[in-house]
Amino acid sequence: MQELKERILKEGRVLPGDIIKVDGFLNHRVDCELMSHIADEFAKYFNIDDVDILLTAEASGIALTAICALRYGKPMVYAKKAKSDNIEGGLFKSEIISYTYKKKVTLLVAKDWIKPGMRVLVIDDFLARGEALRGLCEIVEQAGAQLVGIGCAIEKGFQGGGDRLRERGVNLHSLAIIEKAEPGNIVFREDD
Amino acid sequence: MQELKERILKEGRVLPGDIIKVDGFLNHRVDCELMSHIADEFAKYFNIDDVDILLTAEASGIALTAICALRYGKPMVYAKKAKSDNIEGGLFKSEIISYTYKKKVTLLVAKDWIKPGMRVLVIDDFLARGEALRGLCEIVEQAGAQLVGIGCAIEKGFQGGGDRLRERGVNLHSLAIIEKAEPGNIVFREDD
Repeated sequence: MQELKERILKEGRVLPGDIIKVDGFLNHRVDCELMSHIADEFAKYFNIDDVDILLTAEASGIALTAICALRYGKPMVYAKKAKSDNIEGGLFKSEIISYTYKKKVTLLVAKDWIKPGMRVLVIDDFLARGEALRGLCEIVEQAGAQLVGIGCAIEKGFQGGGDRLRERGVNLHSLAIIEKAEPGNIVFREDD
Repeated sequence: MQELKERILKEGRVLPGDIIKVDGFLNHRVDCELMSHIADEFAKYFNIDDVDILLTAEASGIALTAICALRYGKPMVYAKKAKSDNIEGGLFKSEIISYTYKKKVTLLVAKDWIKPGMRVLVIDDFLARGEALRGLCEIVEQAGAQLVGIGCAIEKGFQGGGDRLRERGVNLHSLAIIEKAEPGNIVFREDD
Protein backbone atom coordinates (compact mmCIF):
# COMPACT_ATOMS: atom_id res chain seq x y z
CA MET A 1 0.00 0.00 0.00
CA GLN A 2 1.78 3.04 -1.33
CA GLU A 3 0.43 5.61 1.15
CA LEU A 4 1.47 3.48 4.12
CA LYS A 5 4.93 2.79 2.71
CA GLU A 6 5.46 6.50 2.12
CA ARG A 7 4.52 7.27 5.73
CA ILE A 8 6.95 4.63 6.97
CA LEU A 9 9.75 6.07 4.82
CA LYS A 10 8.94 9.64 5.86
CA GLU A 11 8.24 9.18 9.57
CA GLY A 12 9.50 5.74 10.59
CA ARG A 13 12.71 5.54 12.58
CA VAL A 14 14.96 2.53 12.91
CA LEU A 15 16.27 1.99 16.44
CA PRO A 16 18.84 -0.48 17.73
CA GLY A 17 17.44 -3.99 18.18
CA ASP A 18 15.58 -4.00 14.86
CA ILE A 19 12.90 -1.73 16.27
CA ILE A 20 10.99 0.28 13.69
CA LYS A 21 9.28 3.17 15.39
CA VAL A 22 6.08 4.32 13.72
CA ASP A 23 4.51 5.79 16.82
CA GLY A 24 3.74 9.10 15.13
CA PHE A 25 0.92 7.64 13.08
CA LEU A 26 0.24 4.01 14.06
CA ASN A 27 0.61 3.06 17.69
CA HIS A 28 0.92 5.97 20.09
CA ARG A 29 -0.20 8.98 18.14
CA VAL A 30 -2.68 7.58 15.58
CA ASP A 31 -3.63 9.07 12.21
CA CYS A 32 -7.17 7.75 12.00
CA GLU A 33 -7.69 8.89 8.42
CA LEU A 34 -4.75 6.69 7.41
CA MET A 35 -6.34 3.89 9.47
CA SER A 36 -9.52 4.23 7.42
CA HIS A 37 -7.50 3.97 4.19
CA ILE A 38 -5.87 0.83 5.58
CA ALA A 39 -9.35 -0.53 6.36
CA ASP A 40 -10.39 0.08 2.75
CA GLU A 41 -7.25 -1.68 1.54
CA PHE A 42 -7.90 -4.77 3.69
CA ALA A 43 -11.35 -4.92 2.12
CA LYS A 44 -9.68 -5.64 -1.24
CA TYR A 45 -8.05 -8.80 0.16
CA PHE A 46 -10.86 -10.24 2.28
CA ASN A 47 -14.51 -10.80 1.54
CA ILE A 48 -15.93 -8.68 4.35
CA ASP A 49 -19.48 -9.95 3.75
CA ASP A 50 -18.12 -13.31 4.86
CA VAL A 51 -16.88 -11.96 8.22
CA ASP A 52 -18.89 -12.00 11.47
CA ILE A 53 -16.43 -10.33 13.79
CA LEU A 54 -13.03 -8.62 13.86
CA LEU A 55 -10.51 -9.73 16.47
CA THR A 56 -7.36 -8.00 17.68
CA ALA A 57 -5.21 -7.78 20.80
CA GLU A 58 -4.81 -4.84 23.14
CA ALA A 59 -3.49 -2.27 23.01
CA SER A 60 -1.93 -1.20 19.75
CA GLY A 61 -4.28 -3.17 17.50
CA ILE A 62 -7.41 -1.52 18.86
CA ALA A 63 -7.45 1.83 17.04
CA LEU A 64 -7.02 0.31 13.57
CA THR A 65 -9.47 -2.51 14.27
CA ALA A 66 -12.13 -0.13 15.64
CA ILE A 67 -11.98 1.90 12.46
CA CYS A 68 -12.14 -1.26 10.32
CA ALA A 69 -15.15 -2.40 12.36
CA LEU A 70 -16.91 0.92 11.86
CA ARG A 71 -16.27 0.95 8.11
CA TYR A 72 -17.34 -2.68 7.64
CA GLY A 73 -20.34 -2.43 9.99
CA LYS A 74 -19.10 -5.38 12.08
CA PRO A 75 -18.50 -5.79 15.81
CA MET A 76 -14.94 -6.09 17.09
CA VAL A 77 -13.44 -7.94 20.03
CA TYR A 78 -10.05 -7.27 21.53
CA ALA A 79 -8.14 -9.84 23.54
CA LYS A 80 -7.08 -8.51 26.93
CA LYS A 81 -3.60 -8.99 28.28
CA ALA A 82 -4.10 -9.36 32.01
CA LYS A 83 -6.77 -10.70 34.25
CA SER A 84 -8.87 -7.87 35.62
CA ASP A 85 -11.83 -7.94 37.96
CA ASN A 86 -14.06 -7.19 35.01
CA ILE A 87 -13.47 -10.57 33.36
CA GLU A 88 -14.89 -13.48 35.32
CA GLY A 89 -14.71 -17.16 34.30
CA GLY A 90 -15.39 -18.50 30.84
CA LEU A 91 -12.25 -17.41 29.04
CA PHE A 92 -10.30 -18.49 26.00
CA LYS A 93 -6.61 -18.13 26.83
CA SER A 94 -3.38 -18.21 24.91
CA GLU A 95 0.08 -17.62 26.31
CA ILE A 96 2.43 -15.63 24.12
CA ILE A 97 5.83 -14.01 24.50
CA SER A 98 5.85 -10.24 24.15
CA TYR A 99 9.17 -9.16 22.70
CA THR A 100 8.24 -5.53 23.22
CA TYR A 101 7.81 -6.07 26.95
CA LYS A 102 10.21 -9.03 27.30
CA LYS A 103 7.79 -11.23 29.18
CA LYS A 104 5.08 -13.85 28.92
CA VAL A 105 1.63 -12.45 28.43
CA THR A 106 -1.70 -14.27 28.43
CA LEU A 107 -4.25 -13.20 25.85
CA LEU A 108 -7.80 -13.52 27.17
CA VAL A 109 -11.15 -13.44 25.39
CA ALA A 110 -14.45 -14.03 27.16
CA LYS A 111 -16.23 -17.07 25.73
CA ASP A 112 -19.36 -14.96 25.40
CA TRP A 113 -17.93 -13.06 22.46
CA ILE A 114 -16.62 -15.72 20.05
CA LYS A 115 -18.96 -18.59 19.31
CA PRO A 116 -18.44 -21.83 17.37
CA GLY A 117 -18.72 -21.32 13.64
CA MET A 118 -18.22 -17.56 13.75
CA ARG A 119 -16.11 -16.26 10.88
CA VAL A 120 -13.30 -14.20 12.36
CA LEU A 121 -11.03 -11.71 10.62
CA VAL A 122 -7.98 -10.93 12.73
CA ILE A 123 -6.52 -7.42 12.40
CA ASP A 124 -3.29 -6.06 13.82
CA ASP A 125 -1.12 -3.01 13.38
CA PHE A 126 2.27 -4.67 13.45
CA LEU A 127 3.66 -8.15 12.84
CA ALA A 128 7.19 -8.98 13.95
CA ARG A 129 7.73 -12.47 15.32
CA GLY A 130 3.99 -13.08 15.07
CA GLU A 131 3.44 -14.14 18.68
CA ALA A 132 0.32 -12.05 19.24
CA LEU A 133 -1.20 -13.31 16.00
CA ARG A 134 -0.31 -16.90 16.85
CA GLY A 135 -2.14 -16.40 20.15
CA LEU A 136 -5.18 -14.90 18.45
CA CYS A 137 -5.32 -17.81 15.97
CA GLU A 138 -5.19 -20.21 18.92
CA ILE A 139 -8.14 -18.43 20.53
CA VAL A 140 -10.16 -18.63 17.29
CA GLU A 141 -9.42 -22.37 17.25
CA GLN A 142 -10.36 -22.83 20.92
CA ALA A 143 -13.66 -21.15 20.18
CA GLY A 144 -14.38 -23.53 17.31
CA ALA A 145 -14.63 -20.44 15.12
CA GLN A 146 -13.31 -20.06 11.60
CA LEU A 147 -10.31 -17.89 10.77
CA VAL A 148 -11.11 -16.00 7.57
CA GLY A 149 -7.68 -14.39 7.50
CA ILE A 150 -5.34 -11.88 9.06
CA GLY A 151 -4.93 -8.31 7.93
CA CYS A 152 -1.82 -6.58 9.16
CA ALA A 153 -0.67 -3.03 8.46
CA ILE A 154 3.11 -3.40 8.79
CA GLU A 155 5.11 -6.63 8.81
CA LYS A 156 8.80 -7.02 9.59
CA GLY A 157 9.42 -9.61 6.87
CA PHE A 158 12.98 -10.24 7.98
CA GLN A 159 11.83 -11.61 11.35
CA GLY A 160 9.90 -14.42 9.68
CA GLY A 161 6.72 -14.35 11.80
CA GLY A 162 4.46 -13.61 8.83
CA ASP A 163 6.00 -16.26 6.60
CA ARG A 164 5.60 -18.87 9.35
CA LEU A 165 1.87 -18.08 9.43
CA ARG A 166 1.65 -18.24 5.61
CA GLU A 167 3.40 -21.63 5.61
CA ARG A 168 0.71 -22.89 7.99
CA GLY A 169 -1.87 -21.88 5.38
CA VAL A 170 -3.12 -18.71 7.06
CA ASN A 171 -4.57 -16.16 4.63
CA LEU A 172 -2.36 -13.29 5.81
CA HIS A 173 -2.07 -9.96 4.04
CA SER A 174 0.29 -7.25 5.25
CA LEU A 175 0.16 -3.89 3.52
CA ALA A 176 3.82 -3.01 3.94
CA ILE A 177 6.39 -5.79 4.43
CA ILE A 178 9.76 -4.47 5.52
CA GLU A 179 12.66 -6.66 4.38
CA LYS A 180 15.53 -4.50 5.55
CA ALA A 181 15.62 -1.77 8.17
CA GLU A 182 18.73 0.29 8.79
CA PRO A 183 18.77 3.94 9.82
CA GLY A 184 17.94 5.87 6.66
CA ASN A 185 17.44 2.70 4.62
CA ILE A 186 14.10 0.89 4.82
CA VAL A 187 13.48 -1.62 2.02
CA PHE A 188 10.08 -3.19 1.31
CA ARG A 189 9.29 -6.62 -0.10
CA GLU A 190 7.83 -6.44 -3.59
CA ASP A 191 4.04 -6.82 -3.63
CA ASP A 192 2.64 -10.13 -4.92
CA MET B 1 -27.77 9.88 25.84
CA GLN B 2 -30.82 7.69 25.45
CA GLU B 3 -29.34 5.03 23.15
CA LEU B 4 -26.40 4.45 25.50
CA LYS B 5 -28.61 4.28 28.59
CA GLU B 6 -30.84 1.75 26.89
CA ARG B 7 -27.84 -0.44 26.05
CA ILE B 8 -26.64 -0.25 29.65
CA LEU B 9 -30.08 -1.25 30.94
CA LYS B 10 -30.42 -4.04 28.39
CA GLU B 11 -26.91 -5.51 28.42
CA GLY B 12 -25.11 -4.15 31.48
CA ARG B 13 -24.62 -6.45 34.43
CA VAL B 14 -23.94 -5.44 38.00
CA LEU B 15 -21.32 -7.59 39.72
CA PRO B 16 -20.19 -7.63 43.35
CA GLY B 17 -17.82 -4.77 44.21
CA ASP B 18 -19.83 -2.13 42.35
CA ILE B 19 -18.60 -3.41 39.01
CA ILE B 20 -20.84 -2.60 36.08
CA LYS B 21 -19.99 -4.90 33.21
CA VAL B 22 -20.61 -3.45 29.77
CA ASP B 23 -18.08 -5.57 27.95
CA GLY B 24 -20.56 -6.67 25.32
CA PHE B 25 -20.56 -3.28 23.60
CA LEU B 26 -17.98 -0.96 25.18
CA ASN B 27 -14.73 -2.47 26.36
CA HIS B 28 -14.10 -6.02 25.23
CA ARG B 29 -16.54 -6.61 22.42
CA VAL B 30 -17.11 -3.15 20.93
CA ASP B 31 -20.13 -1.92 18.98
CA CYS B 32 -18.39 0.62 16.79
CA GLU B 33 -21.61 2.03 15.38
CA LEU B 34 -22.65 2.93 18.92
CA MET B 35 -19.18 4.45 19.40
CA SER B 36 -19.80 6.68 16.38
CA HIS B 37 -23.11 7.83 17.86
CA ILE B 38 -21.27 8.61 21.10
CA ALA B 39 -18.74 10.60 19.07
CA ASP B 40 -21.55 12.62 17.52
CA GLU B 41 -23.02 13.23 20.97
CA PHE B 42 -19.72 14.52 22.38
CA ALA B 43 -19.61 16.96 19.47
CA LYS B 44 -22.71 18.64 20.90
CA TYR B 45 -20.87 19.45 24.15
CA PHE B 46 -17.45 20.46 22.86
CA ASN B 47 -16.41 22.80 20.09
CA ILE B 48 -14.45 20.32 18.02
CA ASP B 49 -13.05 23.06 15.76
CA ASP B 50 -11.26 24.26 18.86
CA VAL B 51 -9.53 20.90 19.46
CA ASP B 52 -6.07 19.95 18.14
CA ILE B 53 -5.81 16.44 19.47
CA LEU B 54 -7.76 13.74 21.31
CA LEU B 55 -6.12 12.02 24.27
CA THR B 56 -7.06 8.79 26.01
CA ALA B 57 -5.40 5.98 27.97
CA GLU B 58 -4.85 2.41 26.87
CA ALA B 59 -6.53 0.07 26.51
CA SER B 60 -10.28 0.49 26.87
CA GLY B 61 -10.40 4.16 25.82
CA ILE B 62 -8.77 3.52 22.47
CA ALA B 63 -11.66 2.15 20.38
CA LEU B 64 -14.04 5.01 21.24
CA THR B 65 -11.35 7.65 20.85
CA ALA B 66 -10.19 6.31 17.48
CA ILE B 67 -13.72 6.57 16.16
CA CYS B 68 -14.11 10.09 17.58
CA ALA B 69 -10.78 11.04 15.95
CA LEU B 70 -11.91 9.67 12.58
CA ARG B 71 -15.24 11.48 12.73
CA TYR B 72 -13.71 14.78 13.83
CA GLY B 73 -10.74 14.55 11.44
CA LYS B 74 -8.26 14.96 14.33
CA PRO B 75 -5.26 12.92 15.42
CA MET B 76 -5.43 10.93 18.63
CA VAL B 77 -2.82 9.97 21.19
CA TYR B 78 -3.16 7.23 23.76
CA ALA B 79 -1.17 7.14 26.96
CA LYS B 80 0.66 3.86 27.44
CA LYS B 81 0.63 2.00 30.69
CA ALA B 82 4.05 0.38 30.86
CA LYS B 83 7.49 1.21 29.66
CA SER B 84 8.27 -0.72 26.50
CA ASP B 85 11.41 -0.71 24.35
CA ASN B 86 9.53 1.29 21.78
CA ILE B 87 9.32 4.39 23.97
CA GLU B 88 12.67 6.00 24.63
CA GLY B 89 13.32 9.16 26.70
CA GLY B 90 11.23 12.31 26.56
CA LEU B 91 8.11 11.21 28.36
CA PHE B 92 5.31 12.85 30.28
CA LYS B 93 4.42 10.59 33.19
CA SER B 94 1.64 10.35 35.71
CA GLU B 95 1.23 7.71 38.35
CA ILE B 96 -2.30 6.51 38.97
CA ILE B 97 -3.97 3.71 40.87
CA SER B 98 -5.82 1.21 38.74
CA TYR B 99 -8.74 -0.16 40.72
CA THR B 100 -9.47 -2.64 37.96
CA TYR B 101 -6.01 -4.18 38.27
CA LYS B 102 -5.43 -3.26 41.95
CA LYS B 103 -2.02 -1.72 41.39
CA LYS B 104 -0.11 1.45 40.62
CA VAL B 105 0.22 2.17 36.95
CA THR B 106 2.25 4.87 35.24
CA LEU B 107 0.66 6.63 32.28
CA LEU B 108 3.24 7.60 29.68
CA VAL B 109 3.01 9.94 26.70
CA ALA B 110 5.99 10.76 24.48
CA LYS B 111 6.76 14.49 24.57
CA ASP B 112 6.82 14.48 20.77
CA TRP B 113 3.04 14.17 20.62
CA ILE B 114 1.69 16.86 22.92
CA LYS B 115 3.17 20.31 22.53
CA PRO B 116 2.75 23.49 24.59
CA GLY B 117 -0.43 25.33 23.70
CA MET B 118 -2.12 22.36 22.01
CA ARG B 119 -5.84 22.16 22.75
CA VAL B 120 -6.57 18.69 24.06
CA LEU B 121 -9.92 16.93 24.37
CA VAL B 122 -9.66 13.90 26.65
CA ILE B 123 -11.96 10.98 25.85
CA ASP B 124 -12.60 7.86 27.89
CA ASP B 125 -15.06 5.00 27.93
CA PHE B 126 -15.62 4.73 31.64
CA LEU B 127 -15.19 6.97 34.67
CA ALA B 128 -15.28 5.47 38.15
CA ARG B 129 -12.89 6.96 40.68
CA GLY B 130 -11.41 9.10 37.92
CA GLU B 131 -7.79 8.08 38.43
CA ALA B 132 -7.00 7.58 34.74
CA LEU B 133 -8.58 10.94 33.88
CA ARG B 134 -6.71 12.66 36.71
CA GLY B 135 -3.50 11.22 35.25
CA LEU B 136 -4.36 12.37 31.73
CA CYS B 137 -5.13 15.89 33.01
CA GLU B 138 -1.75 15.91 34.74
CA ILE B 139 -0.04 14.97 31.48
CA VAL B 140 -1.85 17.78 29.62
CA GLU B 141 -0.59 20.16 32.31
CA GLN B 142 2.98 18.84 32.16
CA ALA B 143 2.93 19.42 28.41
CA GLY B 144 1.84 23.04 28.87
CA ALA B 145 -1.15 22.16 26.73
CA GLN B 146 -4.72 23.31 27.26
CA LEU B 147 -7.46 20.95 28.44
CA VAL B 148 -10.59 21.73 26.40
CA GLY B 149 -12.63 19.19 28.33
CA ILE B 150 -13.30 15.54 28.99
CA GLY B 151 -15.89 13.44 27.22
CA CYS B 152 -16.77 10.21 28.93
CA ALA B 153 -19.27 7.58 27.81
CA ILE B 154 -20.31 6.08 31.16
CA GLU B 155 -19.71 7.53 34.62
CA LYS B 156 -20.32 5.83 37.94
CA GLY B 157 -21.69 8.94 39.65
CA PHE B 158 -21.89 7.25 43.04
CA GLN B 159 -18.10 6.85 43.18
CA GLY B 160 -17.55 10.60 43.00
CA GLY B 161 -14.63 10.70 40.57
CA GLY B 162 -16.51 12.78 38.01
CA ASP B 163 -17.82 15.27 40.53
CA ARG B 164 -14.31 15.77 41.94
CA LEU B 165 -13.14 16.72 38.43
CA ARG B 166 -16.14 19.07 37.96
CA GLU B 167 -15.39 20.76 41.30
CA ARG B 168 -11.88 21.45 40.03
CA GLY B 169 -13.46 23.28 37.09
CA VAL B 170 -12.94 20.61 34.45
CA ASN B 171 -15.43 20.75 31.59
CA LEU B 172 -16.53 17.12 31.92
CA HIS B 173 -19.49 15.60 30.10
CA SER B 174 -20.53 12.00 30.66
CA LEU B 175 -23.30 10.62 28.50
CA ALA B 176 -24.74 8.22 31.06
CA ILE B 177 -24.15 8.84 34.77
CA ILE B 178 -25.10 5.88 36.92
CA GLU B 179 -26.25 6.86 40.41
CA LYS B 180 -27.28 3.46 41.66
CA ALA B 181 -26.30 0.00 40.48
CA GLU B 182 -27.84 -3.11 41.93
CA PRO B 183 -28.53 -6.31 40.01
CA GLY B 184 -31.62 -5.58 37.95
CA ASN B 185 -31.78 -1.96 39.11
CA ILE B 186 -29.59 0.61 37.41
CA VAL B 187 -30.59 4.23 38.02
CA PHE B 188 -29.23 7.19 36.05
CA ARG B 189 -28.66 10.76 37.19
CA GLU B 190 -31.04 13.21 35.53
CA ASP B 191 -29.45 15.09 32.59
CA ASP B 192 -28.60 18.77 33.15
